[in-house]
Amino acid sequence: MVDYQEILDEIHESLTNVKDKGEVAGYIPELANVPKEKFGIHLQLITGENYSVGDASEKLSIQSISKVLSLAKAFQLVGTNLWKRMDVEPSGNPFNHLSLLEMENGIPRNPLINSGAIVVADVLLSNLENPKDDFLNFVRQLAHDDTISFNETVAESERLTGYNNYAAANLLKSYGNLENDVDDVLDFYFYQCSIMMDCKQLTNAFYVFANKGRCIHDQEHLTASQVKRINAIMLTCGFYDEAGEFAFEVGLPGKSGVGGGIVALLPQCFTIATWSPGLNPQGNSYLGMQALEQFTTKTKLSIF
Amino acid sequence: MVDYQEILDEIHESLTNVKDKGEVAGYIPELANVPKEKFGIHLQLITGENYSVGDASEKLSIQSISKVLSLAKAFQLVGTNLWKRMDVEPSGNPFNHLSLLEMENGIPRNPLINSGAIVVADVLLSNLENPKDDFLNFVRQLAHDDTISFNETVAESERLTGYNNYAAANLLKSYGNLENDVDDVLDFYFYQCSIMMDCKQLTNAFYVFANKGRCIHDQEHLTASQVKRINAIMLTCGFYDEAGEFAFEVGLPGKSGVGGGIVALLPQCFTIATWSPGLNPQGNSYLGMQALEQFTTKTKLSIF
Amino acid sequence: MVDYQEILDEIHESLTNVKDKGEVAGYIPELANVPKEKFGIHLQLITGENYSVGDASEKLSIQSISKVLSLAKAFQLVGTNLWKRMDVEPSGNPFNHLSLLEMENGIPRNPLINSGAIVVADVLLSNLENPKDDFLNFVRQLAHDDTISFNETVAESERLTGYNNYAAANLLKSYGNLENDVDDVLDFYFYQCSIMMDCKQLTNAFYVFANKGRCIHDQEHLTASQVKRINAIMLTCGFYDEAGEFAFEVGLPGKSGVGGGIVALLPQCFTIATWSPGLNPQGNSYLGMQALEQFTTKTKLSIF
Amino acid sequence: MVDYQEILDEIHESLTNVKDKGEVAGYIPELANVPKEKFGIHLQLITGENYSVGDASEKLSIQSISKVLSLAKAFQLVGTNLWKRMDVEPSGNPFNHLSLLEMENGIPRNPLINSGAIVVADVLLSNLENPKDDFLNFVRQLAHDDTISFNETVAESERLTGYNNYAAANLLKSYGNLENDVDDVLDFYFYQCSIMMDCKQLTNAFYVFANKGRCIHDQEHLTASQVKRINAIMLTCGFYDEAGEFAFEVGLPGKSGVGGGIVALLPQCFTIATWSPGLNPQGNSYLGMQALEQFTTKTKLSIF
Repeated sequence: MVDYQEILDEIHESLTNVKDKGEVAGYIPELANVPKEKFGIHLQLITGENYSVGDASEKLSIQSISKVLSLAKAFQLVGTNLWKRMDVEPSGNPFNHLSLLEMENGIPRNPLINSGAIVVADVLLSNLENPKDDFLNFVRQLAHDDTISFNETVAESERLTGYNNYAAANLLKSYGNLENDVDDVLDFYFYQCSIMMDCKQLTNAFYVFANKGRCIHDQEHLTASQVKRINAIMLTCGFYDEAGEFAFEVGLPGKSGVGGGIVALLPQCFTIATWSPGLNPQGNSYLGMQALEQFTTKTKLSIF
Repeated sequence: MVDYQEILDEIHESLTNVKDKGEVAGYIPELANVPKEKFGIHLQLITGENYSVGDASEKLSIQSISKVLSLAKAFQLVGTNLWKRMDVEPSGNPFNHLSLLEMENGIPRNPLINSGAIVVADVLLSNLENPKDDFLNFVRQLAHDDTISFNETVAESERLTGYNNYAAANLLKSYGNLENDVDDVLDFYFYQCSIMMDCKQLTNAFYVFANKGRCIHDQEHLTASQVKRINAIMLTCGFYDEAGEFAFEVGLPGKSGVGGGIVALLPQCFTIATWSPGLNPQGNSYLGMQALEQFTTKTKLSIF
Repeated sequence: MVDYQEILDEIHESLTNVKDKGEVAGYIPELANVPKEKFGIHLQLITGENYSVGDASEKLSIQSISKVLSLAKAFQLVGTNLWKRMDVEPSGNPFNHLSLLEMENGIPRNPLINSGAIVVADVLLSNLENPKDDFLNFVRQLAHDDTISFNETVAESERLTGYNNYAAANLLKSYGNLENDVDDVLDFYFYQCSIMMDCKQLTNAFYVFANKGRCIHDQEHLTASQVKRINAIMLTCGFYDEAGEFAFEVGLPGKSGVGGGIVALLPQCFTIATWSPGLNPQGNSYLGMQALEQFTTKTKLSIF
Repeated sequence: MVDYQEILDEIHESLTNVKDKGEVAGYIPELANVPKEKFGIHLQLITGENYSVGDASEKLSIQSISKVLSLAKAFQLVGTNLWKRMDVEPSGNPFNHLSLLEMENGIPRNPLINSGAIVVADVLLSNLENPKDDFLNFVRQLAHDDTISFNETVAESERLTGYNNYAAANLLKSYGNLENDVDDVLDFYFYQCSIMMDCKQLTNAFYVFANKGRCIHDQEHLTASQVKRINAIMLTCGFYDEAGEFAFEVGLPGKSGVGGGIVALLPQCFTIATWSPGLNPQGNSYLGMQALEQFTTKTKLSIF
């Protein structure tokens, strides 16, 4: 039988002393001040066993990882109508994110790039009674954990410096692909990204995607078909301009965030979350990418 | 001797009954409500003679024509430092205006596309004591006409719907190429564009570019070298994605606006302004383009 | 137990009378003359059972499906050195295939777009003694079938009209990313694409990708790690600009060709091939895409 | 009265000792071997006076300067039909020359970029009885000089290494915008570019563009309207991605070549040619650009 704890320990040990840990995101103080040496991994099997190493129970800013959760909620609320407002193709282009939006007349390439996630936020704003509370409750239910919450300081910092997101949202608005006010949509979006969770909570929340739509307490939140599609989007679009590389090296659906978190999963098998705040030039956690590559190589567990 | 009045009359007559006058800009009520049949031309020779036909003394919203005037003021104020923040190359691309900005790291292609004019507005905001008043006074001095003023209703309408300009300004800000607040810069920019002038006033104001920097009252506002450069920019960049076509068909430095105005000039010879609110698909006045083509063909007067 | 034959029959029946079968590729006579009503499916389980319906034993021009086979051979020959000359990211852009190549200095986005496959052909030309014979033998061994052969008429037709491929190859050459002569590389490439196989032979040949590198006769041709990576590339890049859509709707690694063939697989479970020559606007078989979507929906078998 | 000889001498002296002369084009031996210190200027007034300095009577490879001459011949032959096959807009984009062609479905941006000049070459091939001889005779007539000829060694070197031009021509062919064989069109194109002329011959040949279509012997080759349009294209498109900069700094219609030549003109006033083989990063003669800037600044002669 596989000794998962040993595997996590080995990975942690092999990477913890790596000199080049990448660069911590420096555009807001709350992210810039996180110590670069933080490093944790948490693995949860579909059968419920949990394995942990390092700083797996420290809270991190989940940032873009929240885009999968907001996509899940929006998909639950409006179904396939969602795809009238965005596509499901990889963006595949490091050069010109807003230009893709221009060339495709305000239809974001997919829900996991910023412009797509802003449209998803707009959908939630239009369809939830108390958007922030309702979304936070959805995340708490998925993870079965009421301690999960927003970090308002982070959200406010993003609001003050998020010019690129304002640019994207205004461009979407100019194409008629936002129903609500730009400021309201971005307010929600910055809150959504500011959620704090630790690695264990992340594996709890993403259990639903490994379990055909049923969360850790076996409640159905999404259909098996919806989960299949969200996993496909994570695989093809979850790692910015490095999605192909992640599929190629790791071979799991997953999502990274600029806070240094990554969560990935093998359907019917496990969810795994890593945290190391140093990023590679593509904006994905440097140690996290390597840890997951090692994990799927050592266990020979991947979708391929 | 050339009978300019006869030429203007002929042009006016030949075009006034054209059925396809293009489409009036419909994105704000103040522009949408202008009657499509308005059509005027005013010619002013460097020697001071004036020739007019049609609605040449009715006020129009000068819109993007103002970009040449703000460029002139900024050039006067900061000199060649201006070119640290923008380039002087034609944009040449109808597809992806914001993407050019992305690919070139926030440096607008030239001062006559929106992103460039927004940077120029930022320069004026940083260098004028009372930006709106001072700029309006500059225009009044150039045209020797104190009745010229802003149309606040137009400016406010632009503010409410100008999402694309907000997108551009936020993108510039994200690259560190705006010193002032996005809202302040755009407030100034929308006012600048809202100035109302008639065709005669336009030829008065642009006399400075035909006269080596000296206005109709022979005061020097710009050096001959600065005027040469502004004329070059008008020629290569003054007509959106149709700049080459205008150079090719008309052969004069000039600038068009979405309000249906066009002003053009032959150095040391004349300035000419046309107004017809219907636009061609590239956003330039449909009759105005044809009128100027006829004018340079009939008179054989062009820079080439 | 699942009755696969019944499922194939149902799919075949539901689609065979669909009016809109897409457009048959018309750029060379050999493809244009294939009757649009051809439609076959073949399924092979990893355990060896075979299920067939319709025209599954008629030969089709495999075209771009060959790119996976040439990639496999090149990977086998030169290992990870391959990735010095191309990337593994989805191209994600219907607009400008050659421009991506320009922007990325002659490094193709992935081995399954034309420019990437041309570099792979160059690798084979440099590393095989008798390139055409050796490659054909590799395909015959994978499929355990010596009747598989080139269609020289198809290859010659491609040579006469393949201007876009000549453009891509010359551009690669200008960046120094082709070792051999443009004409020699394209000669091999057109032959490789001209291979004729039926649906059953395709499932035989692709068995190696569902079986961790071991072919139907249990010989190891590729390592498990190489197969994992090839499957990842098929998933993210196998369907031109519709790769995300295929992952989303079908959820299997696969590859389509302009001859109307598609082959897909679920690791450790099955390989499946469909053929219907009518293409959708993205260039993928119209009925084939729908058949595979139905198959994974009915069987609930996908990688997600 | 202006002492033109003194001005040329001053310019020559001020630049001849400049250390950074740019880089000589190194992609074919015939260009690479030209000594970097070569530097000549020739000025010819419309009234016939000639002024020379430096290496103005040494032959240089005119390269892209030939595009203006082939455009003139094609315009003469087929008139405005030419514009069905290409546009007259500046390309304005250093990133992706072939991609522009792709995005605009095989219609080159203008006749002075390579793809446009290749279409012009195709027009000449279709409309001249003995294309190479007839075109060479046209150039000889314009310059009134039968010693002008092709450099076959240069043409052959281009043929062996011009992969980028093969890529462009094949792409044009794939869009149906070449009537003749790719190899035949490029053979003509490489010969056209290989013409050898000295600075004085260049001013002779371009006299026609300063003189409303009449050559130095007062024969009409083009109409005044055609010349106006060719001058407009030179101004907006004559200097690759630096066309705006040249208009801005120099203010004359002109054309540069990779051999280090530049020819420019002021209608009804003069033609001027410079030669210095070192190029700036945009591919224009480094000293030549500066010499022309100095010339128009010192003489205050420009179209603006």
